[in-house]
Amino acid sequence: MLPESNNTFRKASFMNVETVIHNGILVTVNNRLDIIQKGWIGIRNSLIQAVEEGAPDLSTMVPQRCIDAKGGIVMPGLVNTHTHLPMTLFRGLADDLPLMTWLKDHIFPAESRYLEPETVYWGSRMACAEMLLSGTTCCCGGYFLEEHVARAVAETGMRAVLAQGVIDSPAPGVPDPKQNISHAANFTDKWLKRNALIQPSIFCHAPYTCSDETLKSAKSAATKRGLTLQIHAAETRLEREQSFRENGVGPVTHLDRLGLLDSGTILAHCVWVDEREMEVIATRGCTVAHCPESNMKLGSGIAPVKAMRDRGIVLGLGTDGSASNNNLDIFGEMDMVAKIQKVVSTDPTALCAPEVVKMATLDGARVIGMADRIGSLEVGKQADIIVLGTDSAHMTPLYHPESHIVYTANGGDVRDVFVGGKQVVLNREVLAFNVQETMDRVNHIAKRIKRVTF
Amino acid sequence: MLPESNNTFRKASFMNVETVIHNGILVTVNNRLDIIQKGWIGIRNSLIQAVEEGAPDLSTMVPQRCIDAKGGIVMPGLVNTHTHLPMTLFRGLADDLPLMTWLKDHIFPAESRYLEPETVYWGSRMACAEMLLSGTTCCCGGYFLEEHVARAVAETGMRAVLAQGVIDSPAPGVPDPKQNISHAANFTDKWLKRNALIQPSIFCHAPYTCSDETLKSAKSAATKRGLTLQIHAAETRLEREQSFRENGVGPVTHLDRLGLLDSGTILAHCVWVDEREMEVIATRGCTVAHCPESNMKLGSGIAPVKAMRDRGIVLGLGTDGSASNNNLDIFGEMDMVAKIQKVVSTDPTALCAPEVVKMATLDGARVIGMADRIGSLEVGKQADIIVLGTDSAHMTPLYHPESHIVYTANGGDVRDVFVGGKQVVLNREVLAFNVQETMDRVNHIAKRIKRVTF
Repeated sequence: MLPESNNTFRKASFMNVETVIHNGILVTVNNRLDIIQKGWIGIRNSLIQAVEEGAPDLSTMVPQRCIDAKGGIVMPGLVNTHTHLPMTLFRGLADDLPLMTWLKDHIFPAESRYLEPETVYWGSRMACAEMLLSGTTCCCGGYFLEEHVARAVAETGMRAVLAQGVIDSPAPGVPDPKQNISHAANFTDKWLKRNALIQPSIFCHAPYTCSDETLKSAKSAATKRGLTLQIHAAETRLEREQSFRENGVGPVTHLDRLGLLDSGTILAHCVWVDEREMEVIATRGCTVAHCPESNMKLGSGIAPVKAMRDRGIVLGLGTDGSASNNNLDIFGEMDMVAKIQKVVSTDPTALCAPEVVKMATLDGARVIGMADRIGSLEVGKQADIIVLGTDSAHMTPLYHPESHIVYTANGGDVRDVFVGGKQVVLNREVLAFNVQETMDRVNHIAKRIKRVTF
Repeated sequence: MLPESNNTFRKASFMNVETVIHNGILVTVNNRLDIIQKGWIGIRNSLIQAVEEGAPDLSTMVPQRCIDAKGGIVMPGLVNTHTHLPMTLFRGLADDLPLMTWLKDHIFPAESRYLEPETVYWGSRMACAEMLLSGTTCCCGGYFLEEHVARAVAETGMRAVLAQGVIDSPAPGVPDPKQNISHAANFTDKWLKRNALIQPSIFCHAPYTCSDETLKSAKSAATKRGLTLQIHAAETRLEREQSFRENGVGPVTHLDRLGLLDSGTILAHCVWVDEREMEVIATRGCTVAHCPESNMKLGSGIAPVKAMRDRGIVLGLGTDGSASNNNLDIFGEMDMVAKIQKVVSTDPTALCAPEVVKMATLDGARVIGMADRIGSLEVGKQADIIVLGTDSAHMTPLYHPESHIVYTANGGDVRDVFVGGKQVVLNREVLAFNVQETMDRVNHIAKRIKRVTF
């Protein structure tokens, strides 16, 4: 214990903070999952400098901004581990159809007709507006024309892992599939150090749409650059059956035989995996982006979340694209994953609220390889922070903040959002860009889509 | 076809409206499930007088109020067919526990210690604020000290079926179980013609908490007064097993043998019903209040919704109490029922969005015996109407309004609410009562609960 005077001196020199968020219930998601019933956070140079109980001593610091959380919940920004940003353009275009009808008669034609640099750009901006306004500060996305996704995201102040899609058929921006790997590699090289908030990546569509050669080349291109590889895997029963017919094994085993599975690979979905495949995923250190709402809406199935977690596999939550959800609200996924896992096990103790909050924050960060930087309220981490209002009818009363986050709240409860210490949403207004203009442009694009499709 | 002059005359005399809601996408939920892409509604004397395409001709009418829906969705108010209003007091008090621990160590003690006229009153007002703000204009609730629930609801301008609880053990307000039927009957007699918006009812807790004699007497008291009987039935596997042990049959068959099943009986849950029991429910004309989120959160199971609907059983949606949900947002139930039914059947065509919208409105009205008055936008029905804003990030773009209602929206998208032609929510502000005062009182009560329980 330092003598009082020294202590004061240390405090005074330490409290060099630019922003203070005070008067909040801090849900830290630190190692002990500490909750500080009334606390404050100090931020400087994009980093969290203090996470403290009580009120800040404003005689020892001169912050430029003081945000009053008004008794609301202050927590790490949410991480959406799997989405396709431009698909906001197709939100609700077609629903309630057999999977192949939906894909082949609606989504694929819409994608091939309407995806172009400008539509992808505006669709991605729309996605960022929605995600930021619902508390997601970091997303992991993959699509085509990804440079225009990245251009949009860079303007919004959001953090993201963004991947150029690789598929063995002509794709928007890549008419010749022979160019798919070089195109993806070029994208990553261009964005590798361009923007502190954007981490490039490569996204192989799926084992059933990419040849073994393509899969291996994509992984090699990602590994060479120290980047993640994202891939849809074991999403539907049909995919599994097809894999058995064509490769004699399930999709996960197939990917493993090709050498694609390691800690740099993010497997999206993993609904149809057996015991042995779960062991493989765990052994290789792959992470899983679990998308409960999309898996349910498409009738794909219910991923064995508990079994995967029991084996030490790290699972984060993802929304998938807006066309199969139909929103990008991670609060909905939190509620959904808890409830669906309870009901399939007929065990209300399956997946408790604190575990689910961790899935949506720190575990999400682990899934995308960013747990050293984001996912919790801890000194030294990037200040990706959201504030939820609790002074509304449906949030009253409040006994346990984690319960409210998972079972009561929705994205509309998010009031303020910070990414890397910078405030990007203030009292539900996006600061960095014009959301109304974005909605106008997307509505204009949607009119074209509607005219031709229906 | 009338000659032009007559037609104009008819129009001029017909368009005696007090309120006009215009510039909206009308989701009518009429027989043809018509959607009017741009239309207006005229209201007078609590009733819908016009549901028309285009813009109102303001030269033929002098409305006192003109509400611009601003291109938003105008639809019938939602019907919550099963809830327990005062349980807002216990929202998130305890979660993620085995059912019996949750009930016996948390909910029952909290109910027995903290339920008193004033807490029930404020908890009910809290529930009304939440329901109105999330677009529910009518709810069907049952609890103890129901006269204080009714007192609260009557002040809020909400429509409700409210039932005094009957159980064969000492209950708040009914220390002597021998008085349970007379107490319930007194409640209904007191409220039968007291308030046009409140319909009294009797709520038997469950077949496993009420003797055969109590069940029969409760039904007889309800029937004599032409009122509905509500009862929890076939919620959990345990309940079914216990019923087989004690009665040799499942709970639904047991109730049928006692003569409780007819078109005046609302069965809440019906998760564990077999083929034969579904036939019985259909034959007797009972209706079912389906509570998907509560059934999932408590790990109870997934009700056979499709099988019940295929047999012609009318199902509405309910939230159940806030302690097992943890909110009263019917938009969440719509999303949930569609997604869970798709995934359990691995069929994305199971329960389409228009069917789900009907479940939450007209079918809900049928469940509680009010389909002649509410549940659709049709001339002659009560003007229970909600307006959803569509000018937000997550609602952009909009191709099909029913898709957005089910898969995209949440209660926070509700902007304006009318009950019986009276506006009760204007631009997300409750008009009839002070929500802040209600939250303050509930927070005050919750402090007592927290202090003793934890």
